[in-house]
Amino acid sequence: MLLKGLLDDFPVLQRTINGKNLIYLDSAASSLKPSKVVDKVAEFYSYHYANVHRAVHTLASESTEMMENSRSNIAKLLNAESEEIVFTSGTTMSINFIVESFVRTGILKKNDAVLVTAVEHHANFVPWLRMSKLHGFSFKAVKPSGRFGELLIDDFAQFTGENPKILAITGHSNVTGQVINIKKIRELFPDTILIVDGAQLLPHNKVDVKDLNIDFLVFSAHKMLGPSGIGVLYGKKKLLEKMEPFLYGGEMIDKVTLEDVTFNVLPYKFEAGTPHIAGIVGFGVAVDYLNSIGFENISEHVSELTQYAIDKISKLDFVEIYGPLNEEHHAILSFNIDGVHPHDVAHMLDQEFGIAVRSGHHCAQPLMSILKDESKLSLFPNATCRASFYIYNTKDDIDILVDGIKFVKRWFS
Amino acid sequence: MLLKGLLDDFPVLQRTINGKNLIYLDSAASSLKPSKVVDKVAEFYSYHYANVHRAVHTLASESTEMMENSRSNIAKLLNAESEEIVFTSGTTMSINFIVESFVRTGILKKNDAVLVTAVEHHANFVPWLRMSKLHGFSFKAVKPSGRFGELLIDDFAQFTGENPKILAITGHSNVTGQVINIKKIRELFPDTILIVDGAQLLPHNKVDVKDLNIDFLVFSAHKMLGPSGIGVLYGKKKLLEKMEPFLYGGEMIDKVTLEDVTFNVLPYKFEAGTPHIAGIVGFGVAVDYLNSIGFENISEHVSELTQYAIDKISKLDFVEIYGPLNEEHHAILSFNIDGVHPHDVAHMLDQEFGIAVRSGHHCAQPLMSILKDESKLSLFPNATCRASFYIYNTKDDIDILVDGIKFVKRWFS
Repeated sequence: MLLKGLLDDFPVLQRTINGKNLIYLDSAASSLKPSKVVDKVAEFYSYHYANVHRAVHTLASESTEMMENSRSNIAKLLNAESEEIVFTSGTTMSINFIVESFVRTGILKKNDAVLVTAVEHHANFVPWLRMSKLHGFSFKAVKPSGRFGELLIDDFAQFTGENPKILAITGHSNVTGQVINIKKIRELFPDTILIVDGAQLLPHNKVDVKDLNIDFLVFSAHKMLGPSGIGVLYGKKKLLEKMEPFLYGGEMIDKVTLEDVTFNVLPYKFEAGTPHIAGIVGFGVAVDYLNSIGFENISEHVSELTQYAIDKISKLDFVEIYGPLNEEHHAILSFNIDGVHPHDVAHMLDQEFGIAVRSGHHCAQPLMSILKDESKLSLFPNATCRASFYIYNTKDDIDILVDGIKFVKRWFS
Repeated sequence: MLLKGLLDDFPVLQRTINGKNLIYLDSAASSLKPSKVVDKVAEFYSYHYANVHRAVHTLASESTEMMENSRSNIAKLLNAESEEIVFTSGTTMSINFIVESFVRTGILKKNDAVLVTAVEHHANFVPWLRMSKLHGFSFKAVKPSGRFGELLIDDFAQFTGENPKILAITGHSNVTGQVINIKKIRELFPDTILIVDGAQLLPHNKVDVKDLNIDFLVFSAHKMLGPSGIGVLYGKKKLLEKMEPFLYGGEMIDKVTLEDVTFNVLPYKFEAGTPHIAGIVGFGVAVDYLNSIGFENISEHVSELTQYAIDKISKLDFVEIYGPLNEEHHAILSFNIDGVHPHDVAHMLDQEFGIAVRSGHHCAQPLMSILKDESKLSLFPNATCRASFYIYNTKDDIDILVDGIKFVKRWFS
């Protein structure tokens, strides 16, 4: 057990599904919420809530202070400044924000080169792809040449000669579970604007944006014990300062006349409208909770579970597991049972064993066709099952998952 | 009392500020939250939460069902179809979404004319103004010629000859409190794309989008008893269908390859990424709560309070009240005490009387200079105090506000 009594912090784990204790292996889609976060959100709404920034009354001051404390908290986590932390509705909006703002500002122009990878979540793929068609910049994707979607450093090295203006990559694949070596990739592209999709990385790792020399880091609260509807865009101050806002409206302005507008200082210039105040406050509590456990402990615990699951499941000859299966493989295990569609697998694991896993393309369709090429299955379903592990999971959960997989195979044979 | 026992639903009303019972007159900035909404959000996070749409397991199905029930609920409220209800992070994002999507789709082109009013909240002003500079369409604002920012139908009639492609107007001013006669304005511009900022209107009125022939209606949950960070964009299906998405990413796609992307059906095409699931679920409960009171009762109650406040405060010869002061004047009372800055007024009302009012430009700077022109104050501070009323307010609250205003005047004399 990672932390004595930790499971009691997650009330949903008391639930049963068809009489079986719930086993939640879907944290890569969204994590469970500890009582501390939920209670704080409820208490905030019940006793302190008001709109922020624009008033002098007591509730508004309390709300503003609680929100800005969360911002400092998150800045500290990343070794960044508070003014470099912009709140968004999530990772997806953060990335769209960067792309559109780059276009408006002229940072990204016709014929500039944008490089992503073919393993990206659609959130870090579709905005670049679609906007490249609308605005005429070039869009290329690094193809993984390692085991089942594994990105190798050599895959990136081929592109250094193209001198991309922007490199937008995941820090941790939501399908293969590979943790990407950002440091090495940064060394290959020292002058490129580096954007890291940290949606899967941040729940498990403390990321130091200065140490890694990341220009933008984006992530979501809901995958790391926080509320839904709140995300972060970290950006280097000198870049944020010259960027055109993505959203225009209240609070982000300095002066507005009938003819013109000037903008507020960082980070408010990018936070038009009433923020998701309760979400930000709750996210601050989630970060405190993660810090109190310690990111090293979290990472070690999840690593142990991942290796345990890989060891057990790779012994089943009717299961194909995707991703590198080495020490870079973390928290996420995508697999298929030969001859059974992943939706059927997920449905049966849920109904018979109370196990929650995802099934589908995991918002990574380009990667699915890469997995297909390497697959030895009789029929690759363009989808996988995905079990993902977090602080509230145990080896017992994995033992039951293995039993479940065997059961499903027998049922469909 | 509007509804016996209603005040007990708002725990924050038990609070005292410096020993005085809290009187919350800041609902135009954001409303208080009833326990039913807060409890539902907490229960949802604690026992049902998972990511939506993309999985077959029990929690994900429950989450998805709860979210989609809210969507139907909101659709019914507007007399719209569920597929016409797009969830956003709030009114501000909804409007930015429309502007940017119109540009990307070519609905809004160089030299097209956009008409707004000079009383708009910045959320419905700055996006149009700034994007007109970036994309070369024309931007004009209807100036109010009535009493202190009051818009008259004739003010609009002057612009019919210009045949604007788009008319984007508030349904209820957040400063003057004027409820705008959308029906009459629509008659003047039968072929214009009509966008209504319903942020202040929806908390008090049931709006039938078909009856009013509105093309887009945008509003926020947090001003109508719902959670923060969630908003709605209603759009007519035939318009939404041809519009380019604002956010690209997961869930909004149909097929993605390395070269191209096709989009999902309505409304999912516009909902990239993990939605603010808990916010949507909570908003559904807020709508139920409002429906259970009845919008006609709400509107009548708030109307009574507004007239009561106007009667009382207009008797004070050192106070200047803005807005029409007629039957169109609703829920919001902006005023200044001659010789006292509104921030000082708000601060003293808070500290001495426990009254929460806003002070400032209320994200409506263009309107402030219009009020200034008509003001008889010795020095107009380019700002006002704003008291706003909702279901949990009483005539007693207003009596204490009046006492407070007199006290402040004496103190500063």
